[in-house]
Amino acid sequence: MELPFLHWLRENIPPAPNVALGIGDDAALLNQQSSQQTVVTSDMLMDGTDFILQDCGAAAAGRKALAVNLSDLAAMGAKPVAAFVSIAVSKRFGEEAALTVAKQLFAGLLPLAAEFECAIAGGDTNSWNGPLVISVTAIGEVPVGRAWLRSGAQPGDAILVTGTFGGSIKWKHLDFTPRVREALRLQSLATEVHAAIDVSDGLSLDLSRICAASGCGARVELERIPLSLEAVEYCKNEDDFAAATEHGLSDGEDFELILAVPPHEAERLLRDQPLDIPLTQIGWFTAEPGLTQQLPSGEVLPLQPRGYEH
Amino acid sequence: MELPFLHWLRENIPPAPNVALGIGDDAALLNQQSSQQTVVTSDMLMDGTDFILQDCGAAAAGRKALAVNLSDLAAMGAKPVAAFVSIAVSKRFGEEAALTVAKQLFAGLLPLAAEFECAIAGGDTNSWNGPLVISVTAIGEVPVGRAWLRSGAQPGDAILVTGTFGGSIKWKHLDFTPRVREALRLQSLATEVHAAIDVSDGLSLDLSRICAASGCGARVELERIPLSLEAVEYCKNEDDFAAATEHGLSDGEDFELILAVPPHEAERLLRDQPLDIPLTQIGWFTAEPGLTQQLPSGEVLPLQPRGYEH
Repeated sequence: MELPFLHWLRENIPPAPNVALGIGDDAALLNQQSSQQTVVTSDMLMDGTDFILQDCGAAAAGRKALAVNLSDLAAMGAKPVAAFVSIAVSKRFGEEAALTVAKQLFAGLLPLAAEFECAIAGGDTNSWNGPLVISVTAIGEVPVGRAWLRSGAQPGDAILVTGTFGGSIKWKHLDFTPRVREALRLQSLATEVHAAIDVSDGLSLDLSRICAASGCGARVELERIPLSLEAVEYCKNEDDFAAATEHGLSDGEDFELILAVPPHEAERLLRDQPLDIPLTQIGWFTAEPGLTQQLPSGEVLPLQPRGYEH
Repeated sequence: MELPFLHWLRENIPPAPNVALGIGDDAALLNQQSSQQTVVTSDMLMDGTDFILQDCGAAAAGRKALAVNLSDLAAMGAKPVAAFVSIAVSKRFGEEAALTVAKQLFAGLLPLAAEFECAIAGGDTNSWNGPLVISVTAIGEVPVGRAWLRSGAQPGDAILVTGTFGGSIKWKHLDFTPRVREALRLQSLATEVHAAIDVSDGLSLDLSRICAASGCGARVELERIPLSLEAVEYCKNEDDFAAATEHGLSDGEDFELILAVPPHEAERLLRDQPLDIPLTQIGWFTAEPGLTQQLPSGEVLPLQPRGYEH
């Protein structure tokens, strides 16, 4: 399968001006600038775990595999440069069917790559008797010292989030927009971001990871969590939003960003709303470790991090 | 499985001075120098295709997955910097067994990473119901303009090869040494290398790939191909070396280097033998496209590229 597919790839992958050498040699070559750091992230997605191929099709699976990696670059405040896409396609339905799946997979991810100026610069194409596996490594760059780590949150920093949360399983997990544009906009505004993460496993769980890495805690006002329509719809027959909030706090694969931003910077961002999607403050980081929730009455209770535990 | 495994990884992966930020965040950070280019290669290995897990064990599979990527870096003349290892481990025998496989896999690749000063800087850990899949992306660096492409061979260049060929399936495909040291030695000697490739699919097939990329042909003197003991052993009951030569020409996974080197440079290298393993000339590149073999009588016949076609 590899040879005809490589021919197809070469015809369908646009040239990438920022890639010195792309697909077709033993490795790709990327130019470096000493003013930048290379940012590298890898995610592997498997049929039956991260997508159901027969339900969503190979195009959606391919798109998702690239998108989750671009989301990780966004969480570092990095600009995408190139992605490397390795696949193992099932040949249980024959070589022809395997080739079709491979082409659909790339047809699904190439528009996303183009949208975020991420070259497809290499990878590995295989067929086997197992289910579809897609492994993507995305490479980006960020000016030296400007990467957003998980470990820089400080007590008093505002917890800002992009977009809305909950119910991603209905469709968003397959069709989300990685927050690359938002990250780059914040970088271009020289926004002071102390820490960041993308929400892959659940808002509360990923927030707890920033806290663990930063040696601090976080207090959340639950009623401020921006809920997606899909999360709210889960609960249309109920008389309160507790269940919807639970989805917002614990559903995985929202792929929104959580940012730790100092108060003065947060105030400005919340007022100016410089992104095309809402930025919302849901609480603040605390010196005491652990997650807490603050009720409208002012009462403070523990908040158990919940989400998708691998 | 992911969380206990990440703890184990952090305890077992040594710190890497050349990696600004390693495992544990959304992505890794590598420092850049504008005098260098980033070299990136990805290979995915699957149980049942590239190794048989129940025969070889997870340590050998893990080692091979890293080694094939380091071999690609060597084929570019690049120095390893960091590798990203994504795995999908079968949980059909339980979570505990999956964790054991994952640890063995890394125990197998970590010594190789240390030997070639390649940091393990990230990846993705998964368990599922399918067979073991290992996807590695290796990142290296090479001074600008010093990478060895497939496309630079010129008519008249000598075809030099490292090591010996054939019979790799007996053991070498699982335990080969990627020719990183040899590539870096040649780079440090400022050797003029016009083109290079590593032999993953067969000496004649990979040689034909250099020819295709360079727009030239190659003539091989079969009796000069350095055969491995394993290739020769295939044929101990035969009265000639034709069968052994066939193994040398077409067996995959030798992971030796083929180099296109101008004649004056080749003469010096063959005399000085600056590597710890033999460098051998097996022929020369020609202006006429295609592979040919030259018999001891001087007669020239076509040579069909053979090897592992994906």
